[in-house]
Amino acid sequence: MKLFLYLLICSSLISLNAQKLQSPDKNLQITFLLSEKGEAFYTLNYKNKNVVQNSKLGFIINTDTSFFDGFKVQDIKYSSSDTIWDPVWGEQRTIRDNHEEMMVYLEQVQTGYKVNIRFRLFNDGLGFRYEFPVQEKLHSFRINEELTEFNLARDDKAFWIPSDYETNEFSITTSKISEVSSLIDKVRKEPLPSNAPSKTLAVQTPLMLKSANGLYINIHEAALVDYPAMHLNIDDKNYKLSANLSPNRNGEKAFVRSQMKTPWRTIVVSDDARDILASKLILNLNEPSKIEDTSWIKPMKYIGVWWEYFIGSGASWAYSDDSNIIIGETDYSKLKPNNHHPANTKHVKEYIDFASENGFDAVLVEGWNEGWEDWAPYEKEKIFSFTKAYPDFDVEELQNYAKAKGVKIIMHHETTSSVNDYERQLDDAFSFMTKHNYNAVKTGYVGPIIPRSEYHDSQWMVNHYNFVAEKAAKYKIMVDSHEAVRPTGRSRTFPNWIAQESARGTEFESVEGNKPEHTTILPFTRLMGGPMDYTPGIFQTDLSVYGKNKSRVRTTLVKQLALYIAMYSPLQMAADLIENYKKRPDAFQFIKDVAVDWDNSYILEAEPGDFITIARKAKNKNEWFVGGITDENERTATINFSFLPKGKKYEATIYEDGEKADWKTSTIDYKISKQTITSNTVLKKKLAPSGGIAVSIKEIK
Amino acid sequence: MKLFLYLLICSSLISLNAQKLQSPDKNLQITFLLSEKGEAFYTLNYKNKNVVQNSKLGFIINTDTSFFDGFKVQDIKYSSSDTIWDPVWGEQRTIRDNHEEMMVYLEQVQTGYKVNIRFRLFNDGLGFRYEFPVQEKLHSFRINEELTEFNLARDDKAFWIPSDYETNEFSITTSKISEVSSLIDKVRKEPLPSNAPSKTLAVQTPLMLKSANGLYINIHEAALVDYPAMHLNIDDKNYKLSANLSPNRNGEKAFVRSQMKTPWRTIVVSDDARDILASKLILNLNEPSKIEDTSWIKPMKYIGVWWEYFIGSGASWAYSDDSNIIIGETDYSKLKPNNHHPANTKHVKEYIDFASENGFDAVLVEGWNEGWEDWAPYEKEKIFSFTKAYPDFDVEELQNYAKAKGVKIIMHHETTSSVNDYERQLDDAFSFMTKHNYNAVKTGYVGPIIPRSEYHDSQWMVNHYNFVAEKAAKYKIMVDSHEAVRPTGRSRTFPNWIAQESARGTEFESVEGNKPEHTTILPFTRLMGGPMDYTPGIFQTDLSVYGKNKSRVRTTLVKQLALYIAMYSPLQMAADLIENYKKRPDAFQFIKDVAVDWDNSYILEAEPGDFITIARKAKNKNEWFVGGITDENERTATINFSFLPKGKKYEATIYEDGEKADWKTSTIDYKISKQTITSNTVLKKKLAPSGGIAVSIKEIK
Repeated sequence: MKLFLYLLICSSLISLNAQKLQSPDKNLQITFLLSEKGEAFYTLNYKNKNVVQNSKLGFIINTDTSFFDGFKVQDIKYSSSDTIWDPVWGEQRTIRDNHEEMMVYLEQVQTGYKVNIRFRLFNDGLGFRYEFPVQEKLHSFRINEELTEFNLARDDKAFWIPSDYETNEFSITTSKISEVSSLIDKVRKEPLPSNAPSKTLAVQTPLMLKSANGLYINIHEAALVDYPAMHLNIDDKNYKLSANLSPNRNGEKAFVRSQMKTPWRTIVVSDDARDILASKLILNLNEPSKIEDTSWIKPMKYIGVWWEYFIGSGASWAYSDDSNIIIGETDYSKLKPNNHHPANTKHVKEYIDFASENGFDAVLVEGWNEGWEDWAPYEKEKIFSFTKAYPDFDVEELQNYAKAKGVKIIMHHETTSSVNDYERQLDDAFSFMTKHNYNAVKTGYVGPIIPRSEYHDSQWMVNHYNFVAEKAAKYKIMVDSHEAVRPTGRSRTFPNWIAQESARGTEFESVEGNKPEHTTILPFTRLMGGPMDYTPGIFQTDLSVYGKNKSRVRTTLVKQLALYIAMYSPLQMAADLIENYKKRPDAFQFIKDVAVDWDNSYILEAEPGDFITIARKAKNKNEWFVGGITDENERTATINFSFLPKGKKYEATIYEDGEKADWKTSTIDYKISKQTITSNTVLKKKLAPSGGIAVSIKEIK
Repeated sequence: MKLFLYLLICSSLISLNAQKLQSPDKNLQITFLLSEKGEAFYTLNYKNKNVVQNSKLGFIINTDTSFFDGFKVQDIKYSSSDTIWDPVWGEQRTIRDNHEEMMVYLEQVQTGYKVNIRFRLFNDGLGFRYEFPVQEKLHSFRINEELTEFNLARDDKAFWIPSDYETNEFSITTSKISEVSSLIDKVRKEPLPSNAPSKTLAVQTPLMLKSANGLYINIHEAALVDYPAMHLNIDDKNYKLSANLSPNRNGEKAFVRSQMKTPWRTIVVSDDARDILASKLILNLNEPSKIEDTSWIKPMKYIGVWWEYFIGSGASWAYSDDSNIIIGETDYSKLKPNNHHPANTKHVKEYIDFASENGFDAVLVEGWNEGWEDWAPYEKEKIFSFTKAYPDFDVEELQNYAKAKGVKIIMHHETTSSVNDYERQLDDAFSFMTKHNYNAVKTGYVGPIIPRSEYHDSQWMVNHYNFVAEKAAKYKIMVDSHEAVRPTGRSRTFPNWIAQESARGTEFESVEGNKPEHTTILPFTRLMGGPMDYTPGIFQTDLSVYGKNKSRVRTTLVKQLALYIAMYSPLQMAADLIENYKKRPDAFQFIKDVAVDWDNSYILEAEPGDFITIARKAKNKNEWFVGGITDENERTATINFSFLPKGKKYEATIYEDGEKADWKTSTIDYKISKQTITSNTVLKKKLAPSGGIAVSIKEIK
């Protein structure tokens, strides 16, 4: 673990202080060294293959002060840790945190400025962060640039979305690093509610890479707090990636101080793609829960008044078509209702009934509150009331009705990114929620931000999302944030921040669509940071049945079922209209049965962009579920049931694509069968193009 | 009143719809007309002299849509009003609102956009504003430019400070309009905590003008709500002023909507300078109090731990010299105290004792709360706690001590313009105040603003100041805001917003200084919008007695007394150290006696930049006070006591400059005498250079 090697790593770098550290299983090795100029570099190897090499560390601070050279190593300390901890919810009941640590204490000789770099090496990858100790000459200062490099030095295949400080809802592109520059402009043309593309050639994290030398590499960050989100610049001549911190509109990046620690920069790596999905490295690098009593935090399966807004049936979030409203002044009882407002008491009761009858925990209702008549973002501050319901939405009646039926209503706070106003209303909004028995809120951040200096990914907004999660915890409220900065494992620390969207979700199927491979990539990219409220479960994949919308969901029906397993989330929606579930109770049975919290998970098959097959054991129950998905190509999934306890018999209910199933022509073609299996069973099942396989398993007593 | 004149006003303007309106006393006349192109103009005359002529009205909206031409007049409505109302506090017990109104309904033919212009003509001037009615084609939109002109067409003498969206703490310059451009750069060089100079040649309002044709003209605005502050562009070829709305850092000006009304644009005018000071036009254009029970709002005279921070005696707001603090994390009890922190329990008790003994209502304490060790603005968000006192400031002990002595402590909230963080703490901060018996807060906004898109004068910040005043009212807290946007009479609507600084105050006497004429101009400029917490009362004018600070207050001692009358405020500080008052109990008696709320006020003499003499009758008491001040020139003030009720005798205590008194050489030279007077008495008294005269009067029973 503590090898001191004095080697010439590379002709241009004289290793004054080369330090090495190995992972517990010795597969990973990191080398830290200073160049002749006192520049800090690190190299990461996996089974003697290079992951990243000679990658710079450091900053430019304040206006133009170099804080990346002239370093000397003051001290180095090593430590080991092997602990286990239990997440409040998750893919596993217990998580092991086994790592070797190397803390490098650096001082810039000329200035006396100090920075420490803490490296933690796990069997599944590396995390490192900068820590600014208390020091005499540096107190509050600015990060002008973070120079952290991930020097691949190979033209790896990347699964990427373009850097944009406002949005992460792009389609994912698969290409070599060298091809990004020729493809990025087209991707960026996709219409999204707000955009702030990086000036440099850059992509977002979590970035998934597949290297020519057979490695799967994921680059992201952990514990993003009081710092901007990190995107990655691409030097496509040298195949070098480097930190691209989200600025604010003024071009300012991070305002920091001594005693602060940057987020962890993470590299998850393996030669088996399944290890990437199984990695808990990012959670391990986050702080333990700051919420003491977590008994009120519960994974949930829900339905809601939502999909009908997207399908083109004319439903409106707004109660009235009169857009001359002023929040706090307009008397809504005097407005003419538009009569195509589904968030009304009667309709919501139908949802509550259906949820109750089918074992759902909750009903989301969007469009319940005043303001949707004129909700264009950025142009005004007071857009929504979060305490005033529309006249046709009877808060108390629904509260009582839901309670009697044993169902929760999920609150909806679309802010349209009028964030200052949201903060002003926050205590009232949360008090309103607790008063009316809501225990979870879906927040939304559509469009450009107010404060008008900020982007979705800038430091100020990062603080805002954390602020909301923390305040919500005080009210015992769970948060599901949409259009926020992508997660970085922060839900370990605030497990009430139960899910996020922060990527291209199902609603895009109602417009430009999601590529068949989309959900085979997301677990390798977006989901590395935390669960996604992807809202699967669309049975009626052809939207033209509703009217003018000619879009179609680009999967088979069975793939929609499989997503409940392939795309982990403690918050899972059955997103389709009730009527479509009522039409197909046989397929719907899987959604009714599927768990949302797990004792264990087994990544059976995985290749980013191609396929994923995962099995999971329900928490505290002898029930297992398997979900397999494929991209636009049909394939045969191999399900090895060896994860089941040996010596017992199980009944497997198998939901598979029908013979003619195909996402382009015949999506609603499926067959359901039952079969007795054991831990020795291996099933091979054909998945249609953009198809899936879903299995529910019960022990036979 | 309702004269329809169809005249050719000017060769370039064909009056399609010239409308006239006269003030109740017929001295003022406004003409509204449309040009051939459908452009709207107004002209204002006073006693047949031109005040402003052919001044454009209108906007550019959204990116570049003209909303100033192609108008047709849809309707015109006239009305009259003559009412009286009683302010909660003020210079008069009763205020008369007597005006003629003309409402012009305009429609832009091509677009169908509608805007109404409401003109109100008082005997003392004009107010007009734009009102956007509910309309089909215009809902939420942006004001790109407001084009409102004040076309003087004369090279008037102006009393101006440069346009700067961040600060109004400049020295006031007196020059012709044509000279501004050659002087403005030098004025702008003065070091102030933050700057955002306008790109165009522009000055701030309230702008005082003295015209070659013998008129005194004041241009400002009333009821600034949800709109940026208006500065004034100067076209110094044509002597035309025009609205220069404070942008935010993105260059955006106002985000508005139909149903909104702009602030009133005001022109107070007379041929007698005293009428300008007596004008209540701006208050009349504000909405009545929105606070129903105003019994808790009380004018106050106070002392405080304040001046000692400026005089160079080494006192520090901070408790410790260790600037490595983190708000909410640092344990202050473990920090090493610097022992030069006057906001400590013992010292504050001395202030409470002195306040109690001398009839002061309150004691301000700055430096009581955590955060001053590292309070640089803009660089971090969490700068101050507003609920955590320093270890040497015992909140409960002082609360009890002050209560026993019948004195209030005034809370201090320096935000260093970290406004988002202040808003997040606001409810806790106000709850803390009510819990600990504070009923007034001095707020501070030093340095550039967070949200980092904003300036002190931008729309967002205007909303913030209003938000604080409104929220404070809910807690029955009075607000005295420093470094905020200058007032516009809003204290009529929220009379708990009892005073502001928003101009160059006494603390500048400890650095570059205030010119002797400064306080003879402020009542004509800054004070037109509302009372100023100028903090007069400095007896020890030579600061070199304390140590290294070589500055001196540029007035005589008696002028400091006279300021309590010349500079109206319901919140008046005796700003000097206690020890200096103890040394001169004879002069201090005036400060002890002087009232802070009034039944009536009498402007006896006034000339902007030269002199002001004012008499006031204390509210509900048969006591009168006179204050006279002069600029750098000595003069003889004439005090005609005809304002006193006839047929009675009064004892006047006269505080006047001594023979050798001079602000440069001998400031602490004064004499005090008593004299019996009646309403027939006329006194002529010599004022020293930058000297004053102060008189207190009691009825002899």
